[in-house]
Amino acid sequence: MTQPTRRSFIAKTSLLALGASTPAWAAVPAKPMLIHHVFFWLKNPSSKEDQAKLVEGVKTLSKIETIRQLHIGVPADTEKRPVVDNSYAVSELIFFDDLAGQNTYQDHAIHKKFIADYSHLWEKVIVYDAMNLQ
Amino acid sequence: MTQPTRRSFIAKTSLLALGASTPAWAAVPAKPMLIHHVFFWLKNPSSKEDQAKLVEGVKTLSKIETIRQLHIGVPADTEKRPVVDNSYAVSELIFFDDLAGQNTYQDHAIHKKFIADYSHLWEKVIVYDAMNLQ
Repeated sequence: MTQPTRRSFIAKTSLLALGASTPAWAAVPAKPMLIHHVFFWLKNPSSKEDQAKLVEGVKTLSKIETIRQLHIGVPADTEKRPVVDNSYAVSELIFFDDLAGQNTYQDHAIHKKFIADYSHLWEKVIVYDAMNLQ
Repeated sequence: MTQPTRRSFIAKTSLLALGASTPAWAAVPAKPMLIHHVFFWLKNPSSKEDQAKLVEGVKTLSKIETIRQLHIGVPADTEKRPVVDNSYAVSELIFFDDLAGQNTYQDHAIHKKFIADYSHLWEKVIVYDAMNLQ
């Protein structure tokens, strides 16, 4: 129901982005949105091969239609501070429109196949789900 | 050095987005990027007032010029599964272009003021830094 207003806003911000030095993503409206961030720890933490396999697995999720953004990450080489946990092997950051979008994803055959095919690689998973305020 | 190519790509994807049902953000090129995700646990976990104060604090960070996207979150009402940790109070998800952008942020006066003014509210912080592969 909000599509016309939203598209109009996207149109305006996209046009602005064409001439501006600000990247287009900064001009895109951010809400409503559910932020789903998953961190995977491997059974073989030092195996670059297993890390690459898991990255390939996460890529298969991109076909799930309720995903608005999918980012696959590996630990960044940021400063080692006590609060920074970069011990994971692969991260999966997904933006959904809402809770319903996330539920569709959880129950999706592609997601179930991903778990069936790749869960033997990981030892631990932590998931954080956030509703975007801004 | 890559600016013209990138802007040209943004222009194309933005124009595509105008006519497509896909949201504009899905068409924006995703890399290179550093994903910085911070989770805060409050000293008073049940205090909605402290949660709101901390959200206000995180908002002050948005003026730091190397931030490409800033999303402020609160725990989503997703299914309670053993792997889901929604015990935090506030989350801060920031996209930077690269490590240098994150370093500028860490050392920035606005970030230091945020820590000085709001760190009394939190008991625990966990930070995950990821380099975006896709």
